[in-house]
Amino acid sequence: MGPRLLIKDVLLGERTTNVLIAGNRFADLAAPRDAAADEVIEAEGMAILPPFYNTHTHAAMTLLRGYADDMPLDVWLQEYIWPREDKLTADDIYEGSRLAIREMIRSGSVFFNDMYFEIGMTARAVEQMGVRACLGITLMDAHPMALRQEKEAFLRGWQDPTGGRISLAVAPHAIYTAGTETLRYARELARRSGVRLHIHLSETLQEVEDCLRDHGMRPVPYLDSLGLLGPDVVAAHCIHLDDDEIALLARRGVTVSHCPCSNLKLGSGLFRYDRMIASGVRVTLGTDGCSSNNNLDMREEMKFAALLAKYQAGPATLPAAEVLRWATRNGAETFGIDAGEIAAGRLADAILVDLSSERFQPRYNLVSDWVYAADSSCVDTVICDGRILMRGRELMV
Amino acid sequence: MGPRLLIKDVLLGERTTNVLIAGNRFADLAAPRDAAADEVIEAEGMAILPPFYNTHTHAAMTLLRGYADDMPLDVWLQEYIWPREDKLTADDIYEGSRLAIREMIRSGSVFFNDMYFEIGMTARAVEQMGVRACLGITLMDAHPMALRQEKEAFLRGWQDPTGGRISLAVAPHAIYTAGTETLRYARELARRSGVRLHIHLSETLQEVEDCLRDHGMRPVPYLDSLGLLGPDVVAAHCIHLDDDEIALLARRGVTVSHCPCSNLKLGSGLFRYDRMIASGVRVTLGTDGCSSNNNLDMREEMKFAALLAKYQAGPATLPAAEVLRWATRNGAETFGIDAGEIAAGRLADAILVDLSSERFQPRYNLVSDWVYAADSSCVDTVICDGRILMRGRELMV
Repeated sequence: MGPRLLIKDVLLGERTTNVLIAGNRFADLAAPRDAAADEVIEAEGMAILPPFYNTHTHAAMTLLRGYADDMPLDVWLQEYIWPREDKLTADDIYEGSRLAIREMIRSGSVFFNDMYFEIGMTARAVEQMGVRACLGITLMDAHPMALRQEKEAFLRGWQDPTGGRISLAVAPHAIYTAGTETLRYARELARRSGVRLHIHLSETLQEVEDCLRDHGMRPVPYLDSLGLLGPDVVAAHCIHLDDDEIALLARRGVTVSHCPCSNLKLGSGLFRYDRMIASGVRVTLGTDGCSSNNNLDMREEMKFAALLAKYQAGPATLPAAEVLRWATRNGAETFGIDAGEIAAGRLADAILVDLSSERFQPRYNLVSDWVYAADSSCVDTVICDGRILMRGRELMV
Repeated sequence: MGPRLLIKDVLLGERTTNVLIAGNRFADLAAPRDAAADEVIEAEGMAILPPFYNTHTHAAMTLLRGYADDMPLDVWLQEYIWPREDKLTADDIYEGSRLAIREMIRSGSVFFNDMYFEIGMTARAVEQMGVRACLGITLMDAHPMALRQEKEAFLRGWQDPTGGRISLAVAPHAIYTAGTETLRYARELARRSGVRLHIHLSETLQEVEDCLRDHGMRPVPYLDSLGLLGPDVVAAHCIHLDDDEIALLARRGVTVSHCPCSNLKLGSGLFRYDRMIASGVRVTLGTDGCSSNNNLDMREEMKFAALLAKYQAGPATLPAAEVLRWATRNGAETFGIDAGEIAAGRLADAILVDLSSERFQPRYNLVSDWVYAADSSCVDTVICDGRILMRGRELMV
């Protein structure tokens, strides 16, 4: 069973209870107050909530936070980010990933879906710091063949050292950096390796226009024509989609990672909340990298999504409980992580929020307060896989 | 001179220095490290920044936080907020104001421009807790004559007990709740009393359409036809304005209080950043009340404004330094508060932010980090009028 952790006198939904974790799973949500445990958290005045699952980021880009702001995506990427990234060493990636994970834990996230370079270094940081991640092996046409072979060898040789906290993905960067051949190769590699596929999709209008010019199709039918779309695909951004494309994503079971801050900051556009919700496609939330956000704060991302949805489709759109599901359960489900809600038998991922904060007063509705009013200062404790990563706002890792 | 407060080893812009406050003003921004002082703050690893001046809120609405979410403005206001507000007692207003001020201090605000009821109770909270405020006496057609007389008597009898931290305003609620007669009365009362005028303006499309129907003019020319507009007017929201209205506001020297979160959450609309900026009108930021936001966090408001501006008018619009000016100096200037920047001779209002936070790493650009990456967890110390209101995240008031 592993060690037992008892969270005493914690608010769970409408009731105060004692939550028992055994090993890495919730064992009992109504445990006796004196249940035997190896460790006890006195959680009076705190509520237990599911933590965040960040479905699109580039963790080590914390290193580029504030390096280039207030400019369009193409200038930002080509004149600032890519040249600077070329100079990042493997050690930089490790330090940048550690910085990212510290920030994520402090703001209540326990998982990130990454797409970057030197992912072995990010894996090391994830292993050490106790969070979960899906690490995407980035593929671009610009990579020399030797690098591609090296990446394929890494994937073939991969063994998760954490007993389930790390998975890999194949990540063709985007249709404007990965041509038809690379996309086909990525699809085949992911299928053969049994890993997910992670791609940037329809982030800018330019991407759509170029696709129409080069392939005579919009990006979603183009990817579908290559057999790329399926329930193992996570598509980030998905801003410039027509109705048919949204329906096609839903039909193929693709998961959408919505990144509202990044899309606004780079001037990319507005997510089509009304159509996306009506289509039944699985929507999750991502922060994107720190260079276009400029943080990894999923609580903030929830508020942006919920408020933009109301602007786009009316004030009843995307209520607090629904956007919280996007940021938690939908993200966990996408990556086959048996978590995302506080439920007996599920993996023990949780946060404790401090109800003494002004942000939770007078507390008509805890979920509304969490989505619209709170911030990271309210996150007291973070638990992932049954292990305490932060307690009393002090990082334990 | 009053007591001397020395802030040691603090980052101010690009340099580390010692800041000396004497009484309620900055005395020396390059003081000797051993300058005589009654109190010392060891601020190594912190930066000093101007605090926030929140130019539109209803402080005591903290009491209605989370009471009614995810619905349109008219339903929200008429079916939920107004009936609930009718039941608020003077003691409630006092407690709600205290709750609001605690939240404001924790997130780095030292001033709010309020519009509510029982403002004597809010004044008491402001007096006790050391912040600044402009308290608006709300006028609506629905008020009985006796209440109006009572409000006028309050205004006539007002003496600021704080030596300059509290001012009053006359606050006709909006053109849809205050008819021509009430607006003329408000204008005359403000002029006669030498106080500012605070009004909601063009928050919804409905308001504009009703004004066109009833007065044959859009709201801004309508108010101008009553002689209401001038440099002593703060107009909140200002969403649905045509180009001529924006130009007229600029010509009359009206200050605009932009409330991005509230405007999104109620589905009111998008601020016309491009035109507003080009017009030269003075723009400031407000959180609006907690019931339509649902917090009083000006840092979050800056990020929403800056990112929405980029969505609306391109990614170079409203860079970090400019939105910070909206939230700080522009607000202070509007209310004749000789503050809003860290400068010798100015009133000693300041915050210290904790640079050890991940949100400030690697710190290419402190202002960008503050606007886009930080949150209230980074605010360590808050000083208003030379007095420490929060230190080490502990409230002193």
